[in-house]
Amino acid sequence: MKITAVIMAGGRGERFWPRSRNNFPKQFLSLTDDGETMIQKTVARLQSMVSSEDVYIVTNAAYAPLVREQLPQLPPENILLEPAARNTAPCIGLAGAVIRKKYGDAVMMVLPSDHLIKFNQMFLDTLKRASEAALQGNRLVTIGITPTYPETGYGYIHFGEGEEGLAGVYSVKRFVEKPNIELAKEYYSSGEYLWNSGMFVWKASSINSSLKKYLPDMTEGLEKIYNAAGTEGFAAVVDEVFPEFRSESIDFGVMEKSSEVCTIPGNFGWDDVGSWLALERINKTNEYGNMVQGDVISISTKNTIVCGGKKLIATVGIEDLIIVDTKDALLVCAKDSTQDVKKVIENLKICNRNELV
Amino acid sequence: MKITAVIMAGGRGERFWPRSRNNFPKQFLSLTDDGETMIQKTVARLQSMVSSEDVYIVTNAAYAPLVREQLPQLPPENILLEPAARNTAPCIGLAGAVIRKKYGDAVMMVLPSDHLIKFNQMFLDTLKRASEAALQGNRLVTIGITPTYPETGYGYIHFGEGEEGLAGVYSVKRFVEKPNIELAKEYYSSGEYLWNSGMFVWKASSINSSLKKYLPDMTEGLEKIYNAAGTEGFAAVVDEVFPEFRSESIDFGVMEKSSEVCTIPGNFGWDDVGSWLALERINKTNEYGNMVQGDVISISTKNTIVCGGKKLIATVGIEDLIIVDTKDALLVCAKDSTQDVKKVIENLKICNRNELV
Repeated sequence: MKITAVIMAGGRGERFWPRSRNNFPKQFLSLTDDGETMIQKTVARLQSMVSSEDVYIVTNAAYAPLVREQLPQLPPENILLEPAARNTAPCIGLAGAVIRKKYGDAVMMVLPSDHLIKFNQMFLDTLKRASEAALQGNRLVTIGITPTYPETGYGYIHFGEGEEGLAGVYSVKRFVEKPNIELAKEYYSSGEYLWNSGMFVWKASSINSSLKKYLPDMTEGLEKIYNAAGTEGFAAVVDEVFPEFRSESIDFGVMEKSSEVCTIPGNFGWDDVGSWLALERINKTNEYGNMVQGDVISISTKNTIVCGGKKLIATVGIEDLIIVDTKDALLVCAKDSTQDVKKVIENLKICNRNELV
Repeated sequence: MKITAVIMAGGRGERFWPRSRNNFPKQFLSLTDDGETMIQKTVARLQSMVSSEDVYIVTNAAYAPLVREQLPQLPPENILLEPAARNTAPCIGLAGAVIRKKYGDAVMMVLPSDHLIKFNQMFLDTLKRASEAALQGNRLVTIGITPTYPETGYGYIHFGEGEEGLAGVYSVKRFVEKPNIELAKEYYSSGEYLWNSGMFVWKASSINSSLKKYLPDMTEGLEKIYNAAGTEGFAAVVDEVFPEFRSESIDFGVMEKSSEVCTIPGNFGWDDVGSWLALERINKTNEYGNMVQGDVISISTKNTIVCGGKKLIATVGIEDLIIVDTKDALLVCAKDSTQDVKKVIENLKICNRNELV
């Protein structure tokens, strides 16, 4: 059976403000030293497994020009545009309908567009094993990540027995929400929990059955989309039907309910690049612990992240700061206060300064 | 006797980098909220005491356009251009020669161009008393500042007896260099020391006699300048003679040696605006102790100085920092590290990045 990739690229992540903006979210940013953007990396790392014609991007209609510019190798019809943001269940339903129509059935590897993976071959190996598992029955495979510390920012997967005849595939006891630090420590030390990476592998027919079963109010809309897929009226039908879908995550809407769910633990240097703090994990730091991009002179500066451009940035006597300079906005933030950057954005929204959001 | 003002504006202060540059030093900057530059304030505060025709600016030839632009009300011939930097003694000698030639004799109030004064009427009262003292005999009057804390960044004046018949005028026992903190505390608590403000009042004839006596190698050059003053050949003579002067401060060259020296303690809210730290003294701070210029959003930010322009600057979770943004350079500096900003400038010089110095 054909293997396809569905890359979800509709996110509006505010956690990389001021580099990321409403009209330029994180997946289109280059946060690594090599200049490649997150979504370009996401597509590139699948290259040896999925050809460009079988890669689908689902994104907000507003980001269509960015996707076309950054991924010119993809067929234009593989860029599926959401006329409204409705979370992951409708996003996946839309892509599944298009894929069922085109291929009859196919394996769908559903992947976020804004994560980083260090060990690509191990990642591809995991996806291959997940595809094999997905082909047997109607399994909904979720890729779990072996935790390396008690993170409170991710959901966890409580996994159970190994599945018979499928080495490395485990049953799922339950999904749990982002824990507090005590629970996170418990999960971490138990050896029974994985991080929920938001990566899924299944047949288009399998997820379609599950959507019908667990989110029946989507059935009629998805049927309309399926019928229109590949025809001239497709975009108009999506524009009409899609906004009517209820906003729902695939985790809550399907995965937490289905008995077909299983997980494959992955260990491939995954990073969700959740905030500016990630930059010192994913890029090289110098001998003083500084991660520096742009034209920077640092005097007595330690453990600081500086993201600049052409303008000279001089840092003197500082530590544990994040400095991000862009053409129209500068952020100077303590490392332990990244969660408060959203207050800046709220302030800008209240003041109707939407050009800066 | 005519009262004139001589404003020394040749300084190249690096302590306000990146706002100040070699070609745009501190005296030409506006550091207060009212938009007036330091040198404009210096001239404006003398308005009721000295008319524009009697105000002289001595500055580096390179800064002539800046002086003309910022002080268009001054007669062009009152802008005296030093072809080379030779410290304050030659600067004062030059101005004194021009003034003697024009007025026969006159009181010279010699003032720095980059200090701030809060209580202007008290300042003018002090200058008036200093002028009266200067007119009696050949007194060299230095304005001392009543210290308000044990500052280590200024020189001190050890003052002695009150002079007979001149209320508020004191003899000077000696001038002392910038002290260490222990000495500064001693000076401060003794009640016998004043800060040396670098402001002087004397007759042109008095300082000329003293220069002849204590810096006799200047005599011939000053004579040539005196002869050329008011003639077409003046600039050429200054260009020829001035660079030959030895670099010498008036404090070391004359004041520390002369027995004519006396001091008038002033208490008029003087501030030498010696570093970015001064901005929170001279401008209003908000309830969190922040001094903010430009378009700034501060979240959980305390005791921080932010000098921006049109670009939005967002600060989150920081304290005790100085942030200065300009078109081509950004400084983020800990308040206790302002003295290390010069290392940035050294680095730029070493790398031949003179456009940024």
